[in-house]
Amino acid sequence: MRILVNISYQGSQFLGFQIQQQGRTVQQQFEKILKRMHRRHVRIHPSSRTDRGVHAYEQFFHFDTDLNIEPKQWKYAMNSALPDDIYVKEVQQVDDHFHCRYDCLGKRYRYKVYQATHRNPFESGLKTFIKEDLNYSKMNEAAKHFIGTHDFTGFCSQKTEVESKVRTLYQSEIIQTDEGFDYVVTGSGFLYNMVRVLVAFLIEVGKGKRHASEVSTLLNEKNRDSVPFTAPAEGLYLEKIYLTEKDLTTDFGDNIKIHRKKSLQND
Amino acid sequence: MRILVNISYQGSQFLGFQIQQQGRTVQQQFEKILKRMHRRHVRIHPSSRTDRGVHAYEQFFHFDTDLNIEPKQWKYAMNSALPDDIYVKEVQQVDDHFHCRYDCLGKRYRYKVYQATHRNPFESGLKTFIKEDLNYSKMNEAAKHFIGTHDFTGFCSQKTEVESKVRTLYQSEIIQTDEGFDYVVTGSGFLYNMVRVLVAFLIEVGKGKRHASEVSTLLNEKNRDSVPFTAPAEGLYLEKIYLTEKDLTTDFGDNIKIHRKKSLQND
Repeated sequence: MRILVNISYQGSQFLGFQIQQQGRTVQQQFEKILKRMHRRHVRIHPSSRTDRGVHAYEQFFHFDTDLNIEPKQWKYAMNSALPDDIYVKEVQQVDDHFHCRYDCLGKRYRYKVYQATHRNPFESGLKTFIKEDLNYSKMNEAAKHFIGTHDFTGFCSQKTEVESKVRTLYQSEIIQTDEGFDYVVTGSGFLYNMVRVLVAFLIEVGKGKRHASEVSTLLNEKNRDSVPFTAPAEGLYLEKIYLTEKDLTTDFGDNIKIHRKKSLQND
Repeated sequence: MRILVNISYQGSQFLGFQIQQQGRTVQQQFEKILKRMHRRHVRIHPSSRTDRGVHAYEQFFHFDTDLNIEPKQWKYAMNSALPDDIYVKEVQQVDDHFHCRYDCLGKRYRYKVYQATHRNPFESGLKTFIKEDLNYSKMNEAAKHFIGTHDFTGFCSQKTEVESKVRTLYQSEIIQTDEGFDYVVTGSGFLYNMVRVLVAFLIEVGKGKRHASEVSTLLNEKNRDSVPFTAPAEGLYLEKIYLTEKDLTTDFGDNIKIHRKKSLQND
């Protein structure tokens, strides 16, 4: 049977989600526990492969098992064995055709920035520090220009290897917080480094070095060299995974464009 | 000349303050920078040697230098070279007879506990999680019994090697917070693991397993076996270092007992 697991993790002490030859990853933590329980290797399949240092308030993965264990017991067994920086929020049994990656219809990310006269060691790994004054209203204006269906070639890593770089953003906004701002972005999918490149661009807008009016030109140009910065991983949080059409239309309306995946990579 | 440095650090990624044969420590980070600047080894002397995983909102150290650098420049040079989890708050030149450890007349610690239905991976390393209901008012009553001058043999690590285990606590209280409680304790000095043993005892009181009325007996017994638990390091913050009598009498009154150090260890 297929088991779906909803987790959260603080990413600062992980080399990322995906298992590596060496080093601590989220996938490694779970596969170690599942191997102990099954006495064989069991592979897990996430909705998203977050990078080194990236956090998740919500992330899903699934795996197949022949063990006869109730969802509540799975949750208890995993949480008992996991380190403090990962937590299993929910476990459920799902249809054998369900696939965390291919059934992922959208994701929301939150990028957290704090502003202060000097950096705070207690925010290290958790939020990005920016000292300079930023114009949030100009940033928000620019952020709105990314909403819709666009080719994001100019706003992702040049290492991105996918057939199509067209994605739809349903939400893209700057929200002022007590200590700075959050950039909240929801989309059908995201290219490699895309959120961090968008944030870096918006910060340049906040400093007055770039302008909202450039966004459409930059999207058309499709040249990453025009948007050279990438914001650090530590401020980035995967916040929500949309696994059903209904979740997405509830948040963004019935008329939105839904992208169904086949075999997109880096997504 | 002698330079005094006021720093803060997030302790979760350090093996402690003191330099080790191997591994990341706060002392090592500073001595590496000072060695680069002086082209020879320069030793730093802290007010307190915090353990692995313990944080500091305030910590002092001093070192001697023949470099002609202004305090502001020292601060800038160190902060530029330090990792994100340490920050230099202030640098000043002091009298050559000043010594961070021997002139330390008192310290305040804060121990942070959060309570929730389940643990939060984003508090990992920063606060201690306790799920069980605790009676804060009983804990506070017990905490008050530690105020005053006592032999704390029963409330420190048995590894503590100091001549006298008599210390004076000026403040010892439980403060309710949004998410749980803080234990705040100010004293002339603290024995090895003393705050963490006090917290573990107070948590037992909160659970109803121990009582405030036992405190005087336990202090007299001087037997650590009667107080067997030690709370985890991750909730512990060094919050203030008292370097002058005036600072201490301002906070706690002119009639308090001041302990002047000669060569106490583990202090």
